[in-house]
Amino acid sequence: MVNHDEIVYKQPMTDRSPLSPPGRLLCGPGPSNVHPQVLEAMRKPMVGHLDPAFHAMLESIMDLLHEVYRRQDGLALALSATGTSGMEAGFTALTEPGDTVIVAAAGFFGARMAEMAARHGARVIELRAPLGSAVPNDRIIDELAHHPETRLVAVVHAETSTGARHPLAELAGAVSELDALLMADCVTSLGGMQLEAGAWGIDYCYSCTQKCLGAPPGLSPVALSPRAMERIRSRRAPAPFAFDFELLRRYWVERPAVYHHTMPILSYYALHEALRLVLEEGLEERWERHAEAGGYLQAGLRERGFELLAEPELQLPQLSAVRVPRGVDGPAVQARLLAEHGIEVGGGLGPGSPPIWRIGMMGTNATTETADRVLEGLDAMVPVRALAGSAA
Amino acid sequence: MVNHDEIVYKQPMTDRSPLSPPGRLLCGPGPSNVHPQVLEAMRKPMVGHLDPAFHAMLESIMDLLHEVYRRQDGLALALSATGTSGMEAGFTALTEPGDTVIVAAAGFFGARMAEMAARHGARVIELRAPLGSAVPNDRIIDELAHHPETRLVAVVHAETSTGARHPLAELAGAVSELDALLMADCVTSLGGMQLEAGAWGIDYCYSCTQKCLGAPPGLSPVALSPRAMERIRSRRAPAPFAFDFELLRRYWVERPAVYHHTMPILSYYALHEALRLVLEEGLEERWERHAEAGGYLQAGLRERGFELLAEPELQLPQLSAVRVPRGVDGPAVQARLLAEHGIEVGGGLGPGSPPIWRIGMMGTNATTETADRVLEGLDAMVPVRALAGSAA
Repeated sequence: MVNHDEIVYKQPMTDRSPLSPPGRLLCGPGPSNVHPQVLEAMRKPMVGHLDPAFHAMLESIMDLLHEVYRRQDGLALALSATGTSGMEAGFTALTEPGDTVIVAAAGFFGARMAEMAARHGARVIELRAPLGSAVPNDRIIDELAHHPETRLVAVVHAETSTGARHPLAELAGAVSELDALLMADCVTSLGGMQLEAGAWGIDYCYSCTQKCLGAPPGLSPVALSPRAMERIRSRRAPAPFAFDFELLRRYWVERPAVYHHTMPILSYYALHEALRLVLEEGLEERWERHAEAGGYLQAGLRERGFELLAEPELQLPQLSAVRVPRGVDGPAVQARLLAEHGIEVGGGLGPGSPPIWRIGMMGTNATTETADRVLEGLDAMVPVRALAGSAA
Repeated sequence: MVNHDEIVYKQPMTDRSPLSPPGRLLCGPGPSNVHPQVLEAMRKPMVGHLDPAFHAMLESIMDLLHEVYRRQDGLALALSATGTSGMEAGFTALTEPGDTVIVAAAGFFGARMAEMAARHGARVIELRAPLGSAVPNDRIIDELAHHPETRLVAVVHAETSTGARHPLAELAGAVSELDALLMADCVTSLGGMQLEAGAWGIDYCYSCTQKCLGAPPGLSPVALSPRAMERIRSRRAPAPFAFDFELLRRYWVERPAVYHHTMPILSYYALHEALRLVLEEGLEERWERHAEAGGYLQAGLRERGFELLAEPELQLPQLSAVRVPRGVDGPAVQARLLAEHGIEVGGGLGPGSPPIWRIGMMGTNATTETADRVLEGLDAMVPVRALAGSAA
């Protein structure tokens, strides 16, 4: 018998009924709907995190991530953490208190990068640009020239709050000639648009699983350059435990001798299958599919008189921020799309956002059929005649 | 058409075959086998993290966690992170550089607490005790009296590396009279043995999902006292973003106005169902089931001449550390149990461990039937006659 030393806890009334979540077409800024084969993979027997079968799968995931990030050298693995923690892991591992960090912020996630860097003790130079644009690379390079002590430059490849792309390829070369490392938020870009971590020279990329990769949320795939790994090895003080990439590298590579943490095993099954499907489709073919679905949606939106927030030459295919027309209640349309059509689209993010809807064509959902469903839903809510000359 | 600026990446040969993990009976130190209803819950339609249906589920999870942790006040939620990160979150949130922290270390996870606290800049007083025992509460209280500036006392409720219990109830009262907070590692105890976070006065408890709760790994359920929340609100500098509990509280409670991160939605479905099943069974009935299964296994082991590492009065029911008999190759037995019987048991953890097997009776697996399967497997590997007078 258990000896119940002292039990004074009084049971409250808690809702104990089982879940019955409704079916949704997830066309917001993420998550997207999980690919059925990825869900199937999560049903496979769960082995332990030290099982030889699990070791083999982790090796395969590293190889697959090197391919999907397009980086042959350095380190590619997935953090047992969210995409947000992937952002924090970068500042945690690659900066030390007092380091100068330049952050290009043209939206919510750029601003969050600046906030996080400051929380980690960095001297943050935040370069801002209007929502829907990108901080010009020339400005970043100028700032770097004025601050040669800069240790890290952080940009958002695909700004999820505005639907705008940062032209990364053009930036990377300029940064790599200096001592600074380049960190890129690839949360909304990985698997959905061209990203060349190796050729472009991005030192730290982080992403998530629930957008263009088509897996459920829960892990943060990352890719580090050899320069980033050197930086980590030469730190004055060790990083916090969870984001110590040298420990993580040993845990992934030298297993089972090194123990770090118990991994979310079924989430890794899901990631493995999702990455496998990306390469089965072909990475470039997948970028193409996102481009087609997004372009189709955006053409349909413009035909109806909607305006997009992002500058046309920076418009992401996989995420469209649509201005809510004057006189239309944006959140009410979102709520009705969800309740009446089972379609999720996002709203503006953060207090500084103009009234927008954010529509994602990501992963499994990046098809013209999905775009048609969203457009039909919008048509039922916002008749075209209401749009004539009304865009705010 | 996508304009492929520059593609120089060469495709390596990666194994792209689908997963085919073997079925296992998971009787190591965790994970345990996932309850079938928990797996079913993960198959339900995935909604977005800002869906009203998801809000309702998070509220329910908070209520369920208050019940399972037996704390009515303060904050109970699950971190979107591993149990290891639950440990780190405690030091991150509750200490600031230069703070004095007393850590009671009688095994791998106690030692890891001391390491993590040091990584976060604490002045660590590490009290050690032999493997299989616990640091006497009197020693901790003496040390506190000598160091009244102590801000945090950290202990491991159920030391997963040795199978020994720390008598927490007796310690908590002494700590709460001082300025220090009490933090307890409940990774292996939550749901498997008596734990009264409220009545005992534990200020920060953290756990995992994959042991006595019977869900897959991926989240870290935590419970904080009002004192812990006050400590967090009065920090000199904000904590890192991921583990800022005041932000997390707002994200869980004031949604959808506050955005923090995208949660691992299916992992929360799993946790919801697992907690529901714990309370459907009855928390005390579940403790009892773990006590019975563990007691049965331990009696069977002793009958066969095996010796347990933990002191008998501190022996956990849900985890048994068994000394490998002299002349027996421990890792070889583990490997054969896995390959020939499909049964996972653990080995010693860390270079300081004596040769042991660690056998878990946790969650769904805490039954006498499971214990019999493990004993039968061991019998096939280590005949009783080999044990006569052989225990190392």
